[in-house]
Amino acid sequence: MVFELTILGSSSALPTSQRYPSAHVLNVHERFFLIDCGEGTQMQLRKYRIKYGRIHHIFISHLHGDHVFGLYGLLSSMNLSGRESPLRLYAPASFREILFTHLTDFDIHLNFDIEFVALGGMEPVRIHEDKNVTVLSLPLQHRVPSYGFLFREKEKERNIIKEAIDKYNIPLSEIHKIKKGADFYDADGNLIRNSEISTPPPKPRSFAYCSDTAYFMRLSDFVRDVNLLYHEATFDSGNKELAVRTGHSTSEQAAMIARDAGAGKLIIGHFSARYRDVSILLEEARKIFPQTIAAEEGSVIQV
Amino acid sequence: MVFELTILGSSSALPTSQRYPSAHVLNVHERFFLIDCGEGTQMQLRKYRIKYGRIHHIFISHLHGDHVFGLYGLLSSMNLSGRESPLRLYAPASFREILFTHLTDFDIHLNFDIEFVALGGMEPVRIHEDKNVTVLSLPLQHRVPSYGFLFREKEKERNIIKEAIDKYNIPLSEIHKIKKGADFYDADGNLIRNSEISTPPPKPRSFAYCSDTAYFMRLSDFVRDVNLLYHEATFDSGNKELAVRTGHSTSEQAAMIARDAGAGKLIIGHFSARYRDVSILLEEARKIFPQTIAAEEGSVIQV
Repeated sequence: MVFELTILGSSSALPTSQRYPSAHVLNVHERFFLIDCGEGTQMQLRKYRIKYGRIHHIFISHLHGDHVFGLYGLLSSMNLSGRESPLRLYAPASFREILFTHLTDFDIHLNFDIEFVALGGMEPVRIHEDKNVTVLSLPLQHRVPSYGFLFREKEKERNIIKEAIDKYNIPLSEIHKIKKGADFYDADGNLIRNSEISTPPPKPRSFAYCSDTAYFMRLSDFVRDVNLLYHEATFDSGNKELAVRTGHSTSEQAAMIARDAGAGKLIIGHFSARYRDVSILLEEARKIFPQTIAAEEGSVIQV
Repeated sequence: MVFELTILGSSSALPTSQRYPSAHVLNVHERFFLIDCGEGTQMQLRKYRIKYGRIHHIFISHLHGDHVFGLYGLLSSMNLSGRESPLRLYAPASFREILFTHLTDFDIHLNFDIEFVALGGMEPVRIHEDKNVTVLSLPLQHRVPSYGFLFREKEKERNIIKEAIDKYNIPLSEIHKIKKGADFYDADGNLIRNSEISTPPPKPRSFAYCSDTAYFMRLSDFVRDVNLLYHEATFDSGNKELAVRTGHSTSEQAAMIARDAGAGKLIIGHFSARYRDVSILLEEARKIFPQTIAAEEGSVIQV
């Protein structure tokens, strides 16, 4: 099953000729989740051939323009394209009023519903659940209220070994129970252990998005054992003071979170425009957490 | 002296993979005027290597998102780039409150002044004048208040013929008057006509921007004898009813305005996303007004 992240924008507040403001699409089993929506997101979606009609959930981490200013145009384009299916929008509470006022100011009258889910709290909160995935919001530390998002695949049922069905003459009525882990008694009353007739499901995978945030140790608890961690790395460690002052992280700090969380892989992004070449950030992170890659527009990372 | 238009965005409300929402830069003698500011304008400026530090005037025709949604990001980027010089913003009156509220909502505190000039009126109004150019706003007809802009070079002084200075021994003190058209009396009291000692200045050039607007005859009076006319052509004439209903023009109507105004050249733009190939619009216009070209991202048109 597909579980992959596409990078639409990897810059921080000041975009460059190569990098767009923050926007990412997470494909979980062919359901598309948009995470942040910087200016130009709709153009980037079109460029990378992701139909915005397929997006039903948009997550806004915080109310800074480089994570939001593509939303008005995207909603308008969805509307002009005839969208009718509802869209769920997760954002800091105050954005509800800002958004709807702004759409009205610009004469945009949506033909589809926006179900607004207000982010909040000082602890992780489950904000979405469907048959494939649960999503938690994670409180981050930034100049304004900011939230990360943790996507976890749900545990699937066990897989029955086909040969066992014939061998033990397992009736259809028992299959469901065995998939859930039950043992089986054959016609002669012999106990057949579940592990003999089924194999465990693939381990659920997980992805966490953490941007924008200053470094704080507890974040590694929030994203414990995540398979893929996206963590902002606006600055190199030479600019640590600046990172603290602006509520951002250095590349080194991003790597420390990945290491302390026991993450599988780290992707760094949200780069300051001062780095024409982000290899300095990448090298810095890899010293602490070797399985690090740098975000780049259009790249697709498997979770 | 340079007088040229660069197209940054030629689409209407729904951008395509090839076309961005409305935005244009007019270079008048190395002063840069931004006309409309659709989403992605700051990226387009960077792509075509126009420094936004050089833009001191931004004109917003009307409050529809495809002409405005790039402004927040552009202002934010100007700010982050250390801008201190004031910016003059011409827009419909209600935008003042919308803009400043929105910047505050997004924690954007500008280090430079925005001098807001409210557009209004049922007649053309002079909204800007400097040593090179005057700018008039033109009331258009759209679903919301909408304004065109007419840029006219000022008449330059006459050019003194160098040989005449020696021939008639013209003192420096007289040069200024002669440049303004005065005749000259030589040492013997002989009248030397101005036309013998000076040549007329180049004819002032003009550019008009008309988008968005429905067709109305009087517009051709507003833009009488303009050298270059940009006129929206959202639809082909087969969609005339749709144009009327949405307050837009067909390509044919754009050409009629150019013809009736006695324009030198017409550039059509603001194309509906339904036209992958705009040659149908171009051909339609050229039947009525042959000197028509179609807007395309990055193209530069001399006035």
